[in-house]
This record gives sequence, structure tokens and C-alpha cells, in this order.
Amino acid sequence: MSELAAEPGSGADLHLEVRGPRVLAGLKEALREAVRSGRLTPGARLPSTRSLAADLGIARNTVVAAYAELVAEGWLSSRQGAATRVATAHGAAPPDRACADPDPARPLHDLRPGTPDVAAFPRAEWLRAARRVFDRAPDRAFSYPDVRGTEELRTALAAYLARARGVRTDPERIVVCAGAAHGLRLLATALRARGTDSVFTEGYGLDLHRRLLTESGLRTPCLPMDGHGARTDLLAQTSGAGAVVLTPAHQFPSGEVLSGDRRAAVIRWARNTGAVVVEDDYDGEFRYENPPVGSLQALDPGHVAYLGTASKSLAPGLRLGWLVVPEILADQLSRALGEFGMCGTLDQLVLAELLGSGAYDRHVRAMRARYRRRREQLSEMLAGRARSRLSGASAGLHAIVNVPSGCEAAIIGAAEADGLALCGISRFRHPRGQDDRDAIVVGYATPSASAWAGALAALEAVLP
Amino acid sequence: MSELAAEPGSGADLHLEVRGPRVLAGLKEALREAVRSGRLTPGARLPSTRSLAADLGIARNTVVAAYAELVAEGWLSSRQGAATRVATAHGAAPPDRACADPDPARPLHDLRPGTPDVAAFPRAEWLRAARRVFDRAPDRAFSYPDVRGTEELRTALAAYLARARGVRTDPERIVVCAGAAHGLRLLATALRARGTDSVFTEGYGLDLHRRLLTESGLRTPCLPMDGHGARTDLLAQTSGAGAVVLTPAHQFPSGEVLSGDRRAAVIRWARNTGAVVVEDDYDGEFRYENPPVGSLQALDPGHVAYLGTASKSLAPGLRLGWLVVPEILADQLSRALGEFGMCGTLDQLVLAELLGSGAYDRHVRAMRARYRRRREQLSEMLAGRARSRLSGASAGLHAIVNVPSGCEAAIIGAAEADGLALCGISRFRHPRGQDDRDAIVVGYATPSASAWAGALAALEAVLP
Repeated sequence: MSELAAEPGSGADLHLEVRGPRVLAGLKEALREAVRSGRLTPGARLPSTRSLAADLGIARNTVVAAYAELVAEGWLSSRQGAATRVATAHGAAPPDRACADPDPARPLHDLRPGTPDVAAFPRAEWLRAARRVFDRAPDRAFSYPDVRGTEELRTALAAYLARARGVRTDPERIVVCAGAAHGLRLLATALRARGTDSVFTEGYGLDLHRRLLTESGLRTPCLPMDGHGARTDLLAQTSGAGAVVLTPAHQFPSGEVLSGDRRAAVIRWARNTGAVVVEDDYDGEFRYENPPVGSLQALDPGHVAYLGTASKSLAPGLRLGWLVVPEILADQLSRALGEFGMCGTLDQLVLAELLGSGAYDRHVRAMRARYRRRREQLSEMLAGRARSRLSGASAGLHAIVNVPSGCEAAIIGAAEADGLALCGISRFRHPRGQDDRDAIVVGYATPSASAWAGALAALEAVLP
Repeated sequence: MSELAAEPGSGADLHLEVRGPRVLAGLKEALREAVRSGRLTPGARLPSTRSLAADLGIARNTVVAAYAELVAEGWLSSRQGAATRVATAHGAAPPDRACADPDPARPLHDLRPGTPDVAAFPRAEWLRAARRVFDRAPDRAFSYPDVRGTEELRTALAAYLARARGVRTDPERIVVCAGAAHGLRLLATALRARGTDSVFTEGYGLDLHRRLLTESGLRTPCLPMDGHGARTDLLAQTSGAGAVVLTPAHQFPSGEVLSGDRRAAVIRWARNTGAVVVEDDYDGEFRYENPPVGSLQALDPGHVAYLGTASKSLAPGLRLGWLVVPEILADQLSRALGEFGMCGTLDQLVLAELLGSGAYDRHVRAMRARYRRRREQLSEMLAGRARSRLSGASAGLHAIVNVPSGCEAAIIGAAEADGLALCGISRFRHPRGQDDRDAIVVGYATPSASAWAGALAALEAVLP
């Protein structure tokens, strides 16, 4: 085999086998075979004749002739002054799902929860921050990063979480993870290693979270809920569970804020039994009317593991989240991390830069204003209706629209027929949960600014 | 509690509790407490007096007075025309391990293997490509990505791996992972799910890889090696193992290329027994003298899982690698992936852009020339010595310097005393391996261009 290395400008390293005694015929057949097998894809640039000839130790004229004959045969194409390329008529066409094409499987309107308005991602700010990071980062920023995340991001997060969420921590307690699911998986592994075999989960919640816990070998008994959030007052009557996962600032999906009594009760239980409380603070930055609710973690940093994410405040595509790990779980979590981080250094440094410069806060504030308006519009739309009723705190990126008993599935079906994707509360019900309310979980953050009005109108048309 | 939300320009969302009947005293004490507890870190910007007053529903003059008095007390600092900030004299100083400071724990010279010359990371090209990606990416690029990696990167990798490494694949068979360790962990989980309980590993190799396999519940019997690479000819005499992990292009660390006979033997074994061959192609792009060795995967894409990484060709800090998954492992690997990808979309899109534009090839070519020169210089330095001898293929980012029996530890110790970090081959020996050669595994890619000559001289000084 011989490497056909191209000159610096040509952009392609080939990997061909030139067979047979006749060099020209051998080279042509090797190139044809590379195109046929798909190793050279349509549109791929070929090396210049000079560098290919030099690398093969053959006459340049032979390469010129081979290229010319393959162009004549339709295998390659060439234009005056441009590189010779593989013609697009040969070989399997590459899958061309160009970015600009709309995905035919996507609904016309999407009000399912879980995704922020990604059209509002602060591209210009991100790119500016990236430029500053590249100007300044030491070479070792490109080497293997600290498995807990870069020190720059952990330091910036410690300051941010303290002032914005009241979290009590320092950079040494923070672990950067690849989104909340990764963070919860790390916590589950650490809890299992600590000897925990059972973790209470809320009566309504993400099926994914229960599954992640189950896959780590943990049982997930159900903690009932009422209008004040999870019934943490019941924990003292239980035995055996070494942890609970809660969404105290804004219960997902039902929207309640965990009351002060319930907060005190869960901390009391954790202290009395040595249990760990996992606080999933997925949308804590977004509060619209009531005063902000501080983190549960601030009540007892020794027993609460705090889990946050950039997926709602910036974009899920970043795959960045963070854990604040209590001392009692630190060793186990460190072992769960392994030896290599999952998160690229560059995005971490850019996020640290945005947090430090105030650009992150400005973005959150702008999005908060936008989502608040949307929630108000949703509320106004529902104001005149007796059979569809908004509930939950005025916060976050989703709202609960309660509908008459037995109507949930029919509404979702009717919406789907109109090109509106909706999500019912029933899919979030704990398999051993008692409550069987009917409601739509409206993710009002999902549409772009231009798509919002249409999505709201589509929702109006299907609600009773 | 009350949120002290700042105006858009000020950069800070606070989270304070203003206590007591007297507003001014209450506000001052709340701010002092926030500084004391570290929730407001030294240097942090405070909201403007206007927005803070508006948010608290108090007179602006009260906030002006509170700021002025706290400046007078030394808690805050203000300069004409700039935002009021927390003074740096109060509160715990933030950990200031500024990027520019050299790490005192780092050796003066580092010739341990595993890291490329990160000072050569193509910052300008990366940033230019990032700008193009931001100009062009659809909004949904910021939403939850395909768990297998973005289609753009999988498509670019399929074309690149075909032409540069002879890999036979298409984008649907590729999975983007967060570096090779993550990729191997995914493969281990998939193999375990397929019923494999034993995976052959080479007589010398990364302890980390054996540990990852063991943690997934797999045994790791030893496949002996000789001067032609791993003894895959012995596999036919074994029974029970459902897989083998090999480094065929450039055995790590010993540096041999797996011979043609040995390649044929392992493929024959895989076909006869239904086993999976994991090809760890960690540095396949880097060949200096001999013709490039194509991937083992090309011999039988149905039985070989191919594992590649950007950690050697670009930078470990990216945490990007890739798998080409054979059909027989596809379902299990898909389940091992779970529901959320680990890799940020932005870096994936930038890498796809670099692969498509030819900038990646240009970078690899430039680094290949640089590493080739370093290897030649190392070879020249050793040429006159009888007791230190280079071995292994002229390839990759490391070389084996064989030293007299019993000398390895003494050389490493002497080097350490001189500020030169070295790594002996013994630390890569399989616990059940037979060979006990003494050698230094010299990672000649690790130093920056300016540090290389000094590192080589330091090595020269300690070798016998």
C-alpha cells in the first residue's frame, strides 16, 4: 500500500493501493476502486498531481494522464484553476440532510416541555467569548482536562450559584457533567456505591430519571404529592431509602413550589437518617411573579446534592450541567467519575467567560422576560374558560393546563391531527403513583419567537 | 426573600434577604452578609442603584446611601463611571490559579506518552470554522443532539476514515463519543450485553483500558506479544473469549505493526467464533517512513469495531472520539448509549467543518512533519549508543527506547531528579504478561516546539 499524501493546500490524505506493473493503469484502477467502494466520496478533493507524483515516486505526467482520463470517463471532474474532485455521478451519493432542510417528521407546532427557545441562543455573545478564550487560554487548556471540569468553570459556577440560587459551595465541591442526565447517573452510581439501594422519586417526574436510577441498581419507590409539592413529611415514617430526588423550586411537571414545612421535613429526615437529598434545580433561574425560592441545598449543604444544567438557560446542545456534591458522597462520586472527563474544555471555558462577564445573567434576564410574557399570554387565553385551568407556580419553562377528567388523550390526539405536538401529564406519572389527574404539560418556551403565536393559537383551538 | 434583579447592563442577579424594619440598615446588612458568606465574591458587580431600587420597591436614594456607606466601610468599591463592585479586601479571596501561572507540580520537561503537542492546536482555524458554523447552523443545532453524534460530523468522519484509514463505513454506523475511554466503555457495556464475559487484551497496553473492561464485568486475559505484534495466531487455540482489543497500526506501547499473517489470523478467529475485534486506532494518522497500514476494520467490517480519537490528532481537551460499530454489536451499543449524548454539538460541528474543508488534513500533515523530525532527532541522539536502542515502527507519538535489564527504574528516578518526567514500559505490562523487558516509552510529541530541544537534551543526559 502506498500513501498518496497531498500538498498542504489540497486538503486530502488518500489511502490507495496501486496495483500491477503498468503504473498508469494501476493508478487509474486504484482511484476507480476508491470511488466505487465509497472510500473517495463524491465531491472529495484529490491531491495535486505534483504532490501525488512525489509521494508515489512516479512521473508527474502519469498522474496528470490518469486524472485526465478519469475525468474523460466521468469518474472525476475538474474546472480550470480548481482542484480535481470526485464526480458526483459516481458512487453512492452522501446522505444529504442539509441543515437548512426542515425535518419532515417535526410537527408544525411544538409545545412539548423540556427544550428552551433555542432560536434565542446568544450566538454572537458565545462567539465573542470564544474569541477571548482563545486569545487567553494557556496551551494546557487543550490537554486532558480535570475530570471534575475546568477550574475556571467551577470557580465561575460557585460564584454564580451563590448569588443567583443561594447555593453554599466552593469550586472544589463542584463537578461539571454532560447535562443533567449524566449528572443524575453519576449520583446514582455514587449512591449505589454508598450502599443505598432505594431512592424516593416524586409521584410525577421524568420517566428517564427513574430509569437512570433503576439501571444503576436502585429501587425507586414513590413519594406522593399534593398541592404543596412532594409529601416529604411522610419520609420520617419510612425506612430503608437512603435518598430522595426532588424538584423543590418548581416541581416537574406539576409546577408546585415545595413549601417551607416540606423543606424543613426533608432536611430533618436526611439529618436523622444520614440520607442524601438530590435537588434537581433544572429551571430555578426562571421565576416570574413570586419572590425567588432559594435552593434547598442552602439549608444543609452537608446532605443535599445540587444538580443544575445549562440546557434550559442556554441550550441543551451544549451538554453541560453541574453538580454540587455533599461531603458524605464526595468519595463515591469521585470514583464514579472515572479518569477522563466527558465535557470538552472549550465550551467550559466559554461558559465560564459568559458567567464572569455578566453575559449569562443578561441572557437569562432577557429570556425570563420573554417566557414571562408567553406565560401571561397563555394565562389570558385560558382566562375565559371554565374547563381548562392553569396551575402551578408562575415560573419555569412549562405550565400545567388542567383539563376535565378523561380528556387528556383526546386533546393530544386532536392536536396531533392539527400538527401540534403536546404532552400529557400522564406520561410523567410514577408507575406506583395514585393521582390520576388529566392535564397538558405545555412547554411554552419551546417555539421560536416567530412560531409562538401560531403555536398558542393551535393550542387554543384544541383545548376545551 | 427578594430578588435583586439588575438592569440588563449590570451583569448580576442577586439573591438576598433584606431583613428588619429599617430598610437602609436591612439592605446594608443583607449585602454585608452576602459578602461575608461568599455568595457575593470579591470583584463581583452589583446591580445599578436604579434597578435594585425598582426591584425591591424602595427609594433609589436608599440604595445609593447603602452603596455609599458600604464603600466607606470598605465592603464595596466604586470608581467614577463604573459599576459598584464587591471590594477585594473582604470575604475569602477566590482561588486564583490564573491560567498564566506555571503549575509548580508540573515537571520542567515532560516526555511521557499520551498527549500531543497541545501548543500546536490550530486555534485560528478552529475559531474561523466556529464562525462559519455559527453563521450557518440551524436553530435546532442548539437543541438535544442525536445521541450518536451530529449527522454532520458522522458524515464527515465516514468520508475521512474511508480515505485516510481505509475504513469501510457509512454515517449510520458511526457513533461520536467523548474520547476513546468513553468509546471503550460503551463497547464494553455492549459486549457484556451481548453475553461476552472475557476480552483478550495485549501483553502490554493501557492499564486504564483493562480497568474499564473489568469495571464493566469483563475478564481480561492476556494475549502474548512478540516482534510482530500480538500473537493473534494463538486465538484459535483458546475458547470462551468473545472479543479482543488490539492496537494493530502501532502497538501501544511497544510500537510494532501487526503483521499481515496476524491480521488474517484474528479475522479468521472472529469469523469462526462470532467474536468481536476492537481496533484501537489511536494514532493511525501518524506514519513517517513505511507505507501507511490500513485499518484492520477494512478486512471485515462485520466483525471489527473501530475506535478513533481526536485526542492525538488535535487535542485531548476536545473530548471527541468515534466508533465504527459492526452490525453484530449495533443493538447492544445503541442501548449502551442511553438517551442523551455526551458531546456538545458545537465542537462536533466545528470538527465536521475542519474535516470537510481540508483544514484537519493540513493540520495532521503539519504535525506529522514535526513529529517525524523529532523522532529522527531522537534516533540520531541514540545512534552512537550501544546500551539504549530504539525499536518499534517509525510512527505515532511515542518511541520505545530499550535499556539494559534492570535499569528502567533507575533511569526514571534519575530523570525525575533532573526535572524530566519519563514513563517506563513496565507500567503498561499486563498483570499476567510474561515479558519483562526494560524500556522507556518516550512521548516525543508532548513538549511544545520551544521545549523539545531541552527535553531531548535532558533525556540524553540520563540514558546509558
